[in-house]
Amino acid sequence: MLNFTFYNPVKILFGKGQIAELSKEMAKNKRILMTYGGGSIKRNGVYDQVMDALKGYDVLEFSGIEPNPHYETLMKAVDIVKKEKIDFLLSVGGGSVLDGTKFIAAAAEYEGDDPWDILSDWSLIKRAIPFGAVLTLPATGSEMNAGAVITKAETQDKLNFVHPAVFPKFSILDPTVTFTLPPHQTANGIIDTFVHTTEQYLTYPVNAPFQDRIAEGILLALIEDAPIVMTKPDDYDARANIMLCAAMALNGLLGMGVPQDWAAHMIGHEITAKYGLDHGQTLAIISPSVLQVKRDSKREKLLQYAERVWDIKEGDDESRIDKAINKMREFFEGLGVKTHFSDYDISEDVVPVILEQLKKHGMTALGENQDITLEVSKEILQRSL
Amino acid sequence: MLNFTFYNPVKILFGKGQIAELSKEMAKNKRILMTYGGGSIKRNGVYDQVMDALKGYDVLEFSGIEPNPHYETLMKAVDIVKKEKIDFLLSVGGGSVLDGTKFIAAAAEYEGDDPWDILSDWSLIKRAIPFGAVLTLPATGSEMNAGAVITKAETQDKLNFVHPAVFPKFSILDPTVTFTLPPHQTANGIIDTFVHTTEQYLTYPVNAPFQDRIAEGILLALIEDAPIVMTKPDDYDARANIMLCAAMALNGLLGMGVPQDWAAHMIGHEITAKYGLDHGQTLAIISPSVLQVKRDSKREKLLQYAERVWDIKEGDDESRIDKAINKMREFFEGLGVKTHFSDYDISEDVVPVILEQLKKHGMTALGENQDITLEVSKEILQRSL
Repeated sequence: MLNFTFYNPVKILFGKGQIAELSKEMAKNKRILMTYGGGSIKRNGVYDQVMDALKGYDVLEFSGIEPNPHYETLMKAVDIVKKEKIDFLLSVGGGSVLDGTKFIAAAAEYEGDDPWDILSDWSLIKRAIPFGAVLTLPATGSEMNAGAVITKAETQDKLNFVHPAVFPKFSILDPTVTFTLPPHQTANGIIDTFVHTTEQYLTYPVNAPFQDRIAEGILLALIEDAPIVMTKPDDYDARANIMLCAAMALNGLLGMGVPQDWAAHMIGHEITAKYGLDHGQTLAIISPSVLQVKRDSKREKLLQYAERVWDIKEGDDESRIDKAINKMREFFEGLGVKTHFSDYDISEDVVPVILEQLKKHGMTALGENQDITLEVSKEILQRSL
Repeated sequence: MLNFTFYNPVKILFGKGQIAELSKEMAKNKRILMTYGGGSIKRNGVYDQVMDALKGYDVLEFSGIEPNPHYETLMKAVDIVKKEKIDFLLSVGGGSVLDGTKFIAAAAEYEGDDPWDILSDWSLIKRAIPFGAVLTLPATGSEMNAGAVITKAETQDKLNFVHPAVFPKFSILDPTVTFTLPPHQTANGIIDTFVHTTEQYLTYPVNAPFQDRIAEGILLALIEDAPIVMTKPDDYDARANIMLCAAMALNGLLGMGVPQDWAAHMIGHEITAKYGLDHGQTLAIISPSVLQVKRDSKREKLLQYAERVWDIKEGDDESRIDKAINKMREFFEGLGVKTHFSDYDISEDVVPVILEQLKKHGMTALGENQDITLEVSKEILQRSL
């Protein structure tokens, strides 16, 4: 096992009816800005639940945070935070609203000229406005970590930042609010959780059996419960398991003392920024190709994955690895998410476009061995056509 | 899955050489009391490592905290804390030193007459002196939770308390410092971790597949690595896995949204208080008997445990359950820890003595179904003779 530091102070309130507990987590004397997206929270009743729980509080609202939240949109919220002397943010929505809220929290306290700069130098962040979250879409894991991904629409840059100042003070996870998610969002969320897990699991072995078992536990739970929620969207147990797995997949546990890949995410972010594909779609396209191209350096873990996650025990090493990668592709396709660029009417022109973006953002040595050069990324992209 | 709250702000610094990072976690302007036990830290070099890391700090020392730390001893430290205006504690030792330090931290800030009272009414705790830990013995999980167990020597009472004010600010876990542990301490620690896990796993199913997998992951890692550390005490990887599992077994993760038993622990505490057996020994005696006596209400999880942890697939339900419980007993015995009272020269007189203690402490409805009455505890004790 490698040395590591683990720290995660996020308080999780999990289960039916937990939104009503909101007031116990928030001081009455705060001036609150509630952030949300396109209004689905008004249709599914979450907005009303939050407002009921916050009766007597001083709450302003900022809506319109889009998927892959835009710097341009978020800076409008930063202006409001400063002008209105907001001292607590409440994110009500999925990972995009929460990531956007993290940026607002840090940007409002940033003393430099342009808060976009914190994305290229995280150490510029000195503090952030405290905030909490009511999560409506399990996917990104943002509810239990200190990371966020922000897009600058003007330049089509999608970049991430991580800083302990942007851990949520609390996150409320009520699985019942996910009953009404559109199927493609449920599916994308499951794929995001799946690939968060494989990015930290399918690398090279360092004798970390506990971390391996948690990773396999998440993958097995997703494989078992995904078909249930896709056909029976109001199955509480299955929704709860998926919501918990999403939080656990990216809260630091899986990554304790093990190497991490993240190439599929980095390449995927560039695809979303340039072509507008959903994050889950980009992972479904790229992730199987990363595993194929890097199968030699990932061999031992791929074989373990084949056996423990997909119960593949027959055949030689190469065919077991192929089967395991195919199983993953079939799992994604079974959720209705296609796994090739051609399925999205994206031609081979995507290859040079994304390589150019990777080069621009210094993504020239990706993966757990920093050996996914632009040449290797090219092969990954070509395999994904 | 049941509703739950999860909150664990302990920072873990894990790995070789992490004691040297101590100064990064502690402010220079603090007046520190370093707490430790009988002096093994002076023999194994940990004392010197800590002192090297704290050069230039204002450090007092309090030694002599015994296994199953005594209220009477700890109150001497409380006096020092008050008199010397200590504002940070540093526990250097195993779970007993750390539990004792938690009590010192809370007792020094307690405004009532006798800090012993906080053990029967945890809400009396309003705050605690902040503290960190350098762990030398993986066992109790105290390094990553807000609980402690304290013994009053005068009355032979052994009671626990839990309060968020006594989360360590940080815990340093360097597996190399466990290389020189006496074998019986290593063994006891492994059994403690094992039973912490089964207390939260072998109950009744609530459809929580992720929690099940983490529990099984810990048990499987212990079963694999225990024989290694018992025969090759300086095997870093095996020591590291066991140290990580100990922290993970009682940091709140396994207990998320699932029923919990804890009968073996409660009965075990009474045995230690009355007969002086090691905590791990009491668990090795009582835990298999709890599973035997409660096998009907634990049936489904016992069968899952038999298959996934011990790979027992043959035979009818009853025989698979028997085999799984026997495997656990053999595992404990294989570590050199005996599993019957008679092995410790304790006669059947233990039964009424312990029942009297349980009654005195209100432990008359133990277990995940609160149906382990004194009558059932009697059966458990009789089966353990």
